[in-house]
Amino acid sequence: MSNIIVVLVHPLYEQNVGLIARVMKNFEASELRLVDPACEVGDEAYRRAMHGRDILEKAKTYDTLEEAVRDCDLIVGTTGKHGKRFSHVRRYMNPEQLASKIAVARGNVAILFGREDFGLTNEELRKCNAVVTIPANKEYPILNVSHAVAIILYEIFKKKKALSVPEIFQPVDLCEEKVMLQYLTMLARKVEPEKADKIELIMKRFLATCQPTGADIRTLIGIFRKTLELLENKRYKRAKGK
Amino acid sequence: MSNIIVVLVHPLYEQNVGLIARVMKNFEASELRLVDPACEVGDEAYRRAMHGRDILEKAKTYDTLEEAVRDCDLIVGTTGKHGKRFSHVRRYMNPEQLASKIAVARGNVAILFGREDFGLTNEELRKCNAVVTIPANKEYPILNVSHAVAIILYEIFKKKKALSVPEIFQPVDLCEEKVMLQYLTMLARKVEPEKADKIELIMKRFLATCQPTGADIRTLIGIFRKTLELLENKRYKRAKGK
Repeated sequence: MSNIIVVLVHPLYEQNVGLIARVMKNFEASELRLVDPACEVGDEAYRRAMHGRDILEKAKTYDTLEEAVRDCDLIVGTTGKHGKRFSHVRRYMNPEQLASKIAVARGNVAILFGREDFGLTNEELRKCNAVVTIPANKEYPILNVSHAVAIILYEIFKKKKALSVPEIFQPVDLCEEKVMLQYLTMLARKVEPEKADKIELIMKRFLATCQPTGADIRTLIGIFRKTLELLENKRYKRAKGK
Repeated sequence: MSNIIVVLVHPLYEQNVGLIARVMKNFEASELRLVDPACEVGDEAYRRAMHGRDILEKAKTYDTLEEAVRDCDLIVGTTGKHGKRFSHVRRYMNPEQLASKIAVARGNVAILFGREDFGLTNEELRKCNAVVTIPANKEYPILNVSHAVAIILYEIFKKKKALSVPEIFQPVDLCEEKVMLQYLTMLARKVEPEKADKIELIMKRFLATCQPTGADIRTLIGIFRKTLELLENKRYKRAKGK
């Protein structure tokens, strides 16, 4: 995330600056730039920044947007206001599309967030290579600026890390799934023999949509095996009684 | 998004409650519940809520978590603290996986967010069907609670809108999943009573990763019910025999 630069254009409230520093730390972005801020970056900002204090300390302030993005290779504006259908200025992409673009790119990427009351102006958006809008409620699409930063950095982080599945999942051994399926089918054959084939198929399809761990499957195998034993035992006793 | 209920467990700061109401409005969620809040919901909260004021006005307060989620069919906990590799309590999914699960489901979904300092306790997480963790910086994964709400609601909103086109999946009724879980736990209690609690937790976490259809679930309920009947019958006969 070291090539991602968050640029706040004329921020009004220091608590937002602090919250943004914190969420940058959460998603491993470290470079914050402020363009002509209307607030100071004081105690309130530092309190909100939590473990992102170092980002505030290193943050640089610029008089103009031009200076702030001079060394950037891709400039991305953000807006909650959708453009008209054919407006080039506000023609927008969504955060996922942006993340796909950035994840495979080298070079400095500046992501611009506008003032809390008016956002970025059309003139500022014109300077951007891309404009991103977060899909939201049409009646009220304007997010708190720190929430917008959180969502956009989250999408980029996710894409960069390609965290498709949490690493913590211990992958299931498909062979164990097969064994579990056999046990469940045996159980079905005992309690509803006429439906056993259908049940096997349903379970196959169902399991295909799941991400069980090995422990899950072994636990279920345990239950089904024990149940079968109990039912067998019953049958056995019955047979003996005859 | 009308079946998504945001539950704040013991929130400490009213500005966070306000920010959360705002972002709920941004993503069309409308039901906020507070469990034993440590802060009041006053001017500061209403200032932060912006257009989400009506959500604060309608928010209900509960003494205990049990009361707050009594009418919910799926309970989702959130945590920034990853579990150990094989911990069932904190075994987690990511927000995308949760969104896939919820987008095709009917029934009330409660999403729990813990106190700002300690998050949710293990005991609270045990009550949850699923646990969600936002992928983040390993050195500092703890997000501001309103940022966590923003990202999770964003993922669900995105998925729901994407799926509002043609729905291939017949949505599962979460209430039916709950019934199946009850039957399986009853079965576990019969065949391995000492492990029943653990099995219930494992099945909750397992089912949370699955996308069963209503037919899948009803078939399994049928099998488990019939098995229980057979085992009961056996016990009944044994008791008569004595």
